[in-house]
Amino acid sequence: MSRHVYLDYNATAPLRAQARAAMEQAMEVGANASSVHMPGRTARGVIETAREAVGTLVGTRPANVVFTSGGTEANNLALEQAQALGCARVLVGATEHPAIGEAASRAGLKVVVLGCDANGIVNMSELAQQLAHPEPAFVAIMHANNETGAIQPIEEIAKAVRAAQGILLCDCVQSLGKLPIDLATFGPHIITISAHKIGGPQGVGALAMAHDVPIAPVNKGGGQERGRRGGTENLIGIAGFGGAAQAAHAQLQENHPADLRIIRDAFETRLQQAAPDLVVFSQAVERLPNTSCFAAPGLDAEKLLMTLDLAGFAVSAGSACSSGKVSRSHVLGAMGIEETLALGAIRVSTGWQTDAEDVTKLADCWLAAYRRAQATITAA
Amino acid sequence: MSRHVYLDYNATAPLRAQARAAMEQAMEVGANASSVHMPGRTARGVIETAREAVGTLVGTRPANVVFTSGGTEANNLALEQAQALGCARVLVGATEHPAIGEAASRAGLKVVVLGCDANGIVNMSELAQQLAHPEPAFVAIMHANNETGAIQPIEEIAKAVRAAQGILLCDCVQSLGKLPIDLATFGPHIITISAHKIGGPQGVGALAMAHDVPIAPVNKGGGQERGRRGGTENLIGIAGFGGAAQAAHAQLQENHPADLRIIRDAFETRLQQAAPDLVVFSQAVERLPNTSCFAAPGLDAEKLLMTLDLAGFAVSAGSACSSGKVSRSHVLGAMGIEETLALGAIRVSTGWQTDAEDVTKLADCWLAAYRRAQATITAA
Repeated sequence: MSRHVYLDYNATAPLRAQARAAMEQAMEVGANASSVHMPGRTARGVIETAREAVGTLVGTRPANVVFTSGGTEANNLALEQAQALGCARVLVGATEHPAIGEAASRAGLKVVVLGCDANGIVNMSELAQQLAHPEPAFVAIMHANNETGAIQPIEEIAKAVRAAQGILLCDCVQSLGKLPIDLATFGPHIITISAHKIGGPQGVGALAMAHDVPIAPVNKGGGQERGRRGGTENLIGIAGFGGAAQAAHAQLQENHPADLRIIRDAFETRLQQAAPDLVVFSQAVERLPNTSCFAAPGLDAEKLLMTLDLAGFAVSAGSACSSGKVSRSHVLGAMGIEETLALGAIRVSTGWQTDAEDVTKLADCWLAAYRRAQATITAA
Repeated sequence: MSRHVYLDYNATAPLRAQARAAMEQAMEVGANASSVHMPGRTARGVIETAREAVGTLVGTRPANVVFTSGGTEANNLALEQAQALGCARVLVGATEHPAIGEAASRAGLKVVVLGCDANGIVNMSELAQQLAHPEPAFVAIMHANNETGAIQPIEEIAKAVRAAQGILLCDCVQSLGKLPIDLATFGPHIITISAHKIGGPQGVGALAMAHDVPIAPVNKGGGQERGRRGGTENLIGIAGFGGAAQAAHAQLQENHPADLRIIRDAFETRLQQAAPDLVVFSQAVERLPNTSCFAAPGLDAEKLLMTLDLAGFAVSAGSACSSGKVSRSHVLGAMGIEETLALGAIRVSTGWQTDAEDVTKLADCWLAAYRRAQATITAA
């Protein structure tokens, strides 16, 4: 396996030991949770134990957790409910994953994009204006941005949406395990989460609700998940999600995110002291404690990634969700960041296995590349 | 874990050692297959290796394999393509999973159900009549039935569908690994398959095509699976699918299904010699070599299942896809089996871990229940 220093947790967190242990136990079951015989009931028990762990992590009843094949499916499933919930319009933040708007269009909804400020925070007066429209709106705003870590004022947004009889979907894929989430008081009607961002396996996620919201399945199948999502349940993956949720919950209780914040802030200080023209995106607002997205003029992220990869560091350039190609991030674009600067943006994201030395070494490697670029500019 | 004799492979096959080994190796990767750094490229390699193994098992190029979260999602994804492929009508076999018709309705298609004979084989003249309709049809007929094991004449059906410019979707979830499938000569345009029926994990499946058919995603996401299915790939699950596919392919080459057929036929002979009024469903036609579905008058499947479960046997009553409730199977209903008989139907399905002794013990346990029921009837 790779000897890389892995600092790309926002793409995928390495599998936690607790998730692995739960998965290995589930591997022994070898039965279908819909079967009535004893092995089948054992499988059912594994799934319901995991559902409880996930419910506990987000502060809702297990019955309000619908397992899916990941955050993407959960977001698609949520948007497919909009019409039935009385909303034909969907308001989407400009820094949401592009799939949100595409899924909304596919669901036959009218999509309105809400602008944001230079830190990526949603424009609240635009939101208020759109909510004043007589047709109720389904609003999709993420808790924290995957690229910059910027945290949206969800409580305030939820108040406005609820006052206007709208429905709020909050993509919490990136905030889960990094910020406390308690659906009883949080505000959104529906949140979406994913196992692999908290050290569970890829291919498992969930839609979770503050209260019971009727969910009609997209995948028509055998009535699994109380008729809300068809298809034999991903037993081993769900078990891993449960194990990861328990571990993430324990780390939240111990305030592990605060340790990550100290590491991140030290990293940024080290960079900014040596590179005065370096820009840290969304630094002026509350961010996820594990995320740093930054750039300096004259650096090219694509080349930088290769340099850092060869030096043994796994980081990312903006969002790395699809084909691996580096183009200007739509998030930085919406924030009005100049293209030449945005094309140099690197995202560093830490997690349960990160220590301070990892990011110090990365900072020095980045600064060496920065100095080489400065020398080239000066020589030219 | 359970000490049950597990004879419910058509519900879920226990995880094969090769699948488990591949999954444990994938657990070490801890990166996103869309990331460009070295750990990300390692993840990509795991997925593409599995895609090759699955492609080999069904006789198509890896590029024609689209991974999904299971057979249900694969069937839903296939049916969603019908309109774009020029078909507004879908012809569905009467013994298909009910989700096929529901997914077709959801996709806005007109659903026509094709009747079947007493063995569950699709009525070919009804098919011909429907194919003569000027509007081209999308036809969904499974390779082998999950309850009875009855094998449809897919090659013949495919010729008729292709001659009428229709599209044939063949659900091969139950036949995969039990019958050879070579998409180069088989006939259907699209097949759907699932890992957990061949000893891979639950929550992974695929849509596979004889030739490249354009597939628009249902889940809008980050462009994964060449834009055909959004969402971070289920790395560990896909690795397990690959491991199971390799093992299943090797067992097919060694003609392991023939061994299962010998075991199954001996089982049925043992039952039929002692219970002359026992009916084995679809016994008159070609069936999956691992499947036996049978009933005798006066027996109740629900009670039988409990008796067998207490005695340490895991078998099923008809389809066990959803809530575990026992109601008359729609498959046996379509075949015209009397309800009183159908309500006693037990399905025994064997697989890679089964030996002859397992089914002999089960036969004796079933026969004991049968004799008790006979005695009650005689006494009454």
